[in-house]
Amino acid sequence: MRILITGSAGFVGSHLVERFLNEGHTVIGVDNYISGQVSNTDLFREHPRFTFIEADVSHGIPYTGDSLDWVMHFASPASPPHYQQFPVETLMVGAQGTQNGLELAHAHGAGFFLASTSEVYGDPHVHPQPETYWGNVNPIGVRSCYDEAKRYAEAITMAYHRSRGVNTRIIRIFNTYGPRMRPDDGRVITNFVHQALRGEPLTVYGDGSQTRSFQYIDDLVEGISRLMMVEYHEPVNLGNPDEFMMIELAKVVEDVFVNNIQMVSIPLPLDDPKQRKPDVELARKLLGWSPNISLQKGLNLLSPHLKNDQ
Amino acid sequence: MRILITGSAGFVGSHLVERFLNEGHTVIGVDNYISGQVSNTDLFREHPRFTFIEADVSHGIPYTGDSLDWVMHFASPASPPHYQQFPVETLMVGAQGTQNGLELAHAHGAGFFLASTSEVYGDPHVHPQPETYWGNVNPIGVRSCYDEAKRYAEAITMAYHRSRGVNTRIIRIFNTYGPRMRPDDGRVITNFVHQALRGEPLTVYGDGSQTRSFQYIDDLVEGISRLMMVEYHEPVNLGNPDEFMMIELAKVVEDVFVNNIQMVSIPLPLDDPKQRKPDVELARKLLGWSPNISLQKGLNLLSPHLKNDQ
Repeated sequence: MRILITGSAGFVGSHLVERFLNEGHTVIGVDNYISGQVSNTDLFREHPRFTFIEADVSHGIPYTGDSLDWVMHFASPASPPHYQQFPVETLMVGAQGTQNGLELAHAHGAGFFLASTSEVYGDPHVHPQPETYWGNVNPIGVRSCYDEAKRYAEAITMAYHRSRGVNTRIIRIFNTYGPRMRPDDGRVITNFVHQALRGEPLTVYGDGSQTRSFQYIDDLVEGISRLMMVEYHEPVNLGNPDEFMMIELAKVVEDVFVNNIQMVSIPLPLDDPKQRKPDVELARKLLGWSPNISLQKGLNLLSPHLKNDQ
Repeated sequence: MRILITGSAGFVGSHLVERFLNEGHTVIGVDNYISGQVSNTDLFREHPRFTFIEADVSHGIPYTGDSLDWVMHFASPASPPHYQQFPVETLMVGAQGTQNGLELAHAHGAGFFLASTSEVYGDPHVHPQPETYWGNVNPIGVRSCYDEAKRYAEAITMAYHRSRGVNTRIIRIFNTYGPRMRPDDGRVITNFVHQALRGEPLTVYGDGSQTRSFQYIDDLVEGISRLMMVEYHEPVNLGNPDEFMMIELAKVVEDVFVNNIQMVSIPLPLDDPKQRKPDVELARKLLGWSPNISLQKGLNLLSPHLKNDQ
C-alpha cells in the first residue's frame, strides 16, 4: 500500500512509518517540525520506500505522487506545554489540517485515519470512558485549543464520511509512551523517567492521587494496524486500562530506574483531569485487540533508549 | 463606528445591521446566501452608510476599506435542517470563518464579537445552564457539525484573545425568533406559526414535553449592544429563561393566531435536547440586561410580519 502520514516525525507517527516500511508498504511522511523531531525523519531518510515532505498540513498537503491507499492524520502538538505554546497552530491542525487530509483522501479514493485522543473526554464524569461517553470539556479553558480541535476533527471526519463517502477511521489514543518521545514533552512518564535518570526528585502535581493509564507504543501501533483492516467508522479507544495513581507510577519508575526516589509536589495545572482510563471492550470485540505490555515491562523496554539519549 | 458583520443577510445579522445603521454607524455586511436571504440585504441596499460584500467568509473576508472598529461574526447555518444539509460548510464557517474574522479584527485593531450558541451545552445535565457549565455534546452525532464548530469557534476566539490580545466578546444565543426568520428554517416557532396560519395541525416531536425558551429578537440585539460596551471576554448567555413545553407553546400560538389548533406527533430527531433554558444572571449583573418581551407579546409583534409573508 501507499500510505501518507502527517506528523511522521512525531512520536506516534515515526513508529507508524517504521511499522509500515517493515511490512513492505510505501510511506510518504509529512511534518513541519513544530513538535516533531528531525531525528525521527533521519531514521528513515535512506529507506527506498520512504519519502519526506516538509510542510505545514494546515496550509495544504503538497503531495502530487501516485495514488494513495491511506491518509493518516497524526500531526498535532499533543502534550500540554507544546499545545499551549502553539494554541492557534494546534487549533488549525485539528481543523484545516484534518480537512486537508480528508480532501486528499477523497481525491485519491483513499482511506482516512484520524488520530484523536482521550482528551475529547476532558475531565470525565464516567469512569472508565467508553466511546459512547460524550465527555466533559471546558470549551474556553487553556486546554481547549487541543481538546476542542480534536472534537472538531472527529466531527468533520464523520461529516466527510456521511456526506462525501470517505472511508474513515477514528481512534482515541490514551496516554502512550515509548522510545522517541521528546524529552521535553512535559508528560508524566517522560518527566519522571528523565528526572529519575538525572537523580532529581520527581515532580508530582497536587497530592499525586490523580490517576492515568499508560500504553506502550507497540500496543497502540498494533491496534492501529488492526483497525485499518476493519470497516468501522466511529471512534475506537486504544489505551491500556491498568490505572495508576501518580505516586504508584513513581514507585514503578523507582523499581526500573533508580533507588530511593524523592518526590516534590507542585500545584495542579488548570483543568487537569483527575482520572482517565479507557474502556477497551470495543477494541477487544472489534479487533481482537488488548494491550499486552505492562507498565513495568514497557518501562524496561524504554530504559535502554533513554539511557542512549542522555 | 465602522462595523463589519458576517451573516448580515441572516435573521440575527439583519437586525444588527438595522440597529447599527439606526444608531448612526457605518456597516459592512458580508454574506454568501447559503442560509441568508437576499431580501435582508435589499432592506439596506440604498442606505448611504451600508455596504454589502457577497463572499464566503470561510474562504476569506475580502474587505479592503477604512479601519474597522468591530468584526462581528454571525455567519453560519443555524437551524438543524440547514446545517445538516451543509455539514462541511457549517464546520468551515465555525473554524476558518471565525479565524478569518479574528485575523481581520487583529489587523484592524478592532474588537471581535462571536455569535456562539446554547448548542454548546448540547443535551444538558445541568438546568438551567450557566456559562460555567461545560456541556454535553455528542462529538460525532448528526448535530456535531454545528455544535462542535461553535465550541471550536469559542476555543479559537479565546486563543486569539489570550495569545494575540484581540479584544473579543462571545455570546451564547438561546432560541430566538422574530421578523425575517426563514419560513423554512425548521425551528419550532417558525413551524408552529406557519402551520397555524395555513390551518394545518402543529407538528410536535415525541410527546411534546421537551422544553425550550424563546427570546424575541429585540431583547437579543439589546444584549449584544450592551456587551460591546463592556470589557468582558468569556461567554455570556443571552436568552429568555421563561420555559415552555412544546404543548404549552402550541397553546400560546393558538391564543395569538388561530383557534382550535390540532397537533400531530412525529418521532424525536436524533440527539434532540430534552430541555434548554438559560441562566441569565451573568448578563443581568454584567450588563443590567434581562429580556423584556414575553412569548405572548413577542408572537403578537411577529404576527403582522408573518401575515405579510404569506
